[in-house]
Amino acid sequence: MTATAASDLDRTVDDVAHRATEAFAGLSRATPATRAEGLRRAAAALGDHADELVATAQVETGLAEARLRGELKRTQVQLRLFAHVVEDGAYLDVRIDEADPEFVLGPRPDLRRALWPVGPVLNFAASNFPFAFSVAGGDTAAALAAGCPVIVKAHPGHPWLSERVAALVAGALVEAGLPEDTLQLVTDQDAGVALLEHPSVRAAAFTGSQRVGQLLAARAAARPEPIPFFGELGSVNPVLVSAAALDERADALLAGFVGSVSGSAGQLCTKPGFLLVPEGTAYDDAVVAAAADVPEHRLLNPSIADGYERRVSEALGVGGVRVVRAGGFRRDDDGQAWVTPTFVAAPLDVLRSAGEALLDEVFGPFSVIVEYPAGTDLAAVVGELFPGNLTLTLHLGSGETGAGETGGEQGALVAALGRYAGRVLLGGWPTGVAVTPAMQHGGPSPATTTDGTSVGTAAIGRFLRGVTFQDAPQDLLPAPLRDDNPWGVPRTVSPRGASAEW
Amino acid sequence: MTATAASDLDRTVDDVAHRATEAFAGLSRATPATRAEGLRRAAAALGDHADELVATAQVETGLAEARLRGELKRTQVQLRLFAHVVEDGAYLDVRIDEADPEFVLGPRPDLRRALWPVGPVLNFAASNFPFAFSVAGGDTAAALAAGCPVIVKAHPGHPWLSERVAALVAGALVEAGLPEDTLQLVTDQDAGVALLEHPSVRAAAFTGSQRVGQLLAARAAARPEPIPFFGELGSVNPVLVSAAALDERADALLAGFVGSVSGSAGQLCTKPGFLLVPEGTAYDDAVVAAAADVPEHRLLNPSIADGYERRVSEALGVGGVRVVRAGGFRRDDDGQAWVTPTFVAAPLDVLRSAGEALLDEVFGPFSVIVEYPAGTDLAAVVGELFPGNLTLTLHLGSGETGAGETGGEQGALVAALGRYAGRVLLGGWPTGVAVTPAMQHGGPSPATTTDGTSVGTAAIGRFLRGVTFQDAPQDLLPAPLRDDNPWGVPRTVSPRGASAEW
Repeated sequence: MTATAASDLDRTVDDVAHRATEAFAGLSRATPATRAEGLRRAAAALGDHADELVATAQVETGLAEARLRGELKRTQVQLRLFAHVVEDGAYLDVRIDEADPEFVLGPRPDLRRALWPVGPVLNFAASNFPFAFSVAGGDTAAALAAGCPVIVKAHPGHPWLSERVAALVAGALVEAGLPEDTLQLVTDQDAGVALLEHPSVRAAAFTGSQRVGQLLAARAAARPEPIPFFGELGSVNPVLVSAAALDERADALLAGFVGSVSGSAGQLCTKPGFLLVPEGTAYDDAVVAAAADVPEHRLLNPSIADGYERRVSEALGVGGVRVVRAGGFRRDDDGQAWVTPTFVAAPLDVLRSAGEALLDEVFGPFSVIVEYPAGTDLAAVVGELFPGNLTLTLHLGSGETGAGETGGEQGALVAALGRYAGRVLLGGWPTGVAVTPAMQHGGPSPATTTDGTSVGTAAIGRFLRGVTFQDAPQDLLPAPLRDDNPWGVPRTVSPRGASAEW
Repeated sequence: MTATAASDLDRTVDDVAHRATEAFAGLSRATPATRAEGLRRAAAALGDHADELVATAQVETGLAEARLRGELKRTQVQLRLFAHVVEDGAYLDVRIDEADPEFVLGPRPDLRRALWPVGPVLNFAASNFPFAFSVAGGDTAAALAAGCPVIVKAHPGHPWLSERVAALVAGALVEAGLPEDTLQLVTDQDAGVALLEHPSVRAAAFTGSQRVGQLLAARAAARPEPIPFFGELGSVNPVLVSAAALDERADALLAGFVGSVSGSAGQLCTKPGFLLVPEGTAYDDAVVAAAADVPEHRLLNPSIADGYERRVSEALGVGGVRVVRAGGFRRDDDGQAWVTPTFVAAPLDVLRSAGEALLDEVFGPFSVIVEYPAGTDLAAVVGELFPGNLTLTLHLGSGETGAGETGGEQGALVAALGRYAGRVLLGGWPTGVAVTPAMQHGGPSPATTTDGTSVGTAAIGRFLRGVTFQDAPQDLLPAPLRDDNPWGVPRTVSPRGASAEW
């Protein structure tokens, strides 16, 4: 890159950042009704162009039409769900302390606190969800709902789709009365990194590989004024199966496992990368049978294909790993790879000694069946080998629940699993993430760089910060803190006199 | 340090970390009632030994008896306030999504989310609050309330007091039925840094200098699994005064300013380091008169004294700075410094060009009176020169409020100030921080490394993370998520069918 080009880049970055800052000033004055309207119009605009958008996404990502139509719908629902969150106002966590001349530590002033938008947010979009974790995806919806302008760094895996979605959504936001540049798109990688270091950008979200995520997180932390960086960096989502569960329903379990590994060609952050079963379990035939029905699926792009080929080869090279079902891998004339799922097996001790060659995520339709000896302390195994995941799943036999009020041994195991993951499933499969108030999509590092969630309504909290106004006259207070509560938000009031008992 | 000593250090660090992890397992099983009882017994133990503790603190810090008695009481109140928070349970943010076969994106499982303790917390104690931000201070109270064991790195400024407080509080926690090692103390600096990098430590809190805080924050971010680091690194807390406010009450304002700068020898993180007044204001006589009454006060320790002497000298060396009132500085035979307050004045342009020599915090009784031209955009000045502070204060004339529903020009200024600070005061002085639900003590960098608060009940949120349990049988669920709600915590339930309208 020449000196002139670098200077062009600087100008672009400064311009984008300046526009976001200008938009922030306008957004701060928008009412909740206007913000909610913007989110709903954005959802509608995507729906109005569904056929065109899905067709573009199919060409660019190789994902199936049904999957993409479902993902587009999820993207619309996310936007509309956050419109409800904005209107509800509970996310503001408004707290009002009445002035209290008798407060136990001396006279207390009038204090009013709420959570406010942090400012412009930079969102690095994902490759594997061209709608739901990309331009108008969950991170964008949460940041817009919080009142933050968003700059999206498009993923190069689906550039046409990104441009089109950005144009539709940006237009819809303006139609709703929100400022120009509330949503902006950049496509250049250097611009994305430069924006991460720009003083106007106040938080960043990222979904992608561990390597890139850690690099960007380090840059965010090394700024003169560090900003929060919410990276979702992958996960291996172990599934633990008890002997009793297998006794009851081995075939259904193994078919469910194969289906969860194979969906979207295993290119989901919640794909189960490990199935832990008791030693002596007979699983080969059921896995092979279920996998036989899985059609060939294109991987997202040649770069993903290269990584998949390399990681599978590394895993297969570990001594003690046995192939249960060898999947296919072929390149077409465009350099795209087409695959069917691969399953291998290994004793627990092999997993322990193999290190990252087996333990690191394989992004694609590959999973390891791990045989553990009877009497193994599964919580200890998870703490040792899988301490940071988006999900952990436990399949128990029907006789292993109902242990009474304390939960007994299995209750302790469930509680322990909560230390190592963001979501603990009792049965079922981790793929398929509900977009709801109670969802947690984020777990200890390396699954995410912080413990925030990037799915569900709690995601809005990542783009908010607390500010307290002290002894402000009513007329100068922001709307949600005024006595007349013009937005009608829920509030927690601490009355005077409450400290008398302390 | 010899190889043997390093190995001793490693053993100590591993032992402390192991004990904290063991304590965490026990704490996780403790009921809210037991945790609240532990906090209350800790407060009582401090009160029972008030005379002894205050006397020790006086010798070690030079702070006045009345200030220390008040600070000890605040420390007790903090602990008891968090006992109420634990019993109330709202901090858990429990969300229950009912299973919904008709959910708009396909059948929704039963999802139950709450905030859980992150694990062992490392707390680097402060020099300037030997009680309230030290061994049993706000960070410790918030972490214990969250259910996290705490390892305190004692500040070397008050070692005897730290040991004594740790022994009293640790004993009280055990008497309440909490695990041994729920509170541990380390005094060695290398041990503190090593613990920051220990995998068992899951979050850290720090109150101290910008230099040390940034160094520790970088270490926390560079771990293989980064952890949140909540550093409070100082603040200059500008106070903006309008011409109308001065017209109305110049003498009271200037006396209040001198008092706020001089309290505790200016060694408070909320000391106003700048007073911005309109050009042409006559303030010298009032400042000199008010400062004449301020007695000599010892600085906390020789290291603080060295920093104060150096920073004051740097500020006085800036061209265009005029001395309004020269304070005293003398060393006693123990190397401790005794001071009276110093006030200087400078036009706004001098502040702009002087850079860090004037703008960086001076820790001690020193403040700069800045003269701004009529018509200055104060919000722009704050954004340019003071973008990250714990507090910003605005003194207006009585005719400048009551501008109607939109808040007018002054309302816009107040809202803008909220972007650059954690607490915005309309009148009054930033020193004296109420410990309440609505307090925010934390602002944009460099005031704090994240936007969390270290004072008030919202501080508990720094030591929590979300975990969702999906389709778990009642008997295996943690108590606050069970249908029968044995802890009686408030919960938000999303009923089935709610998505039908989307």
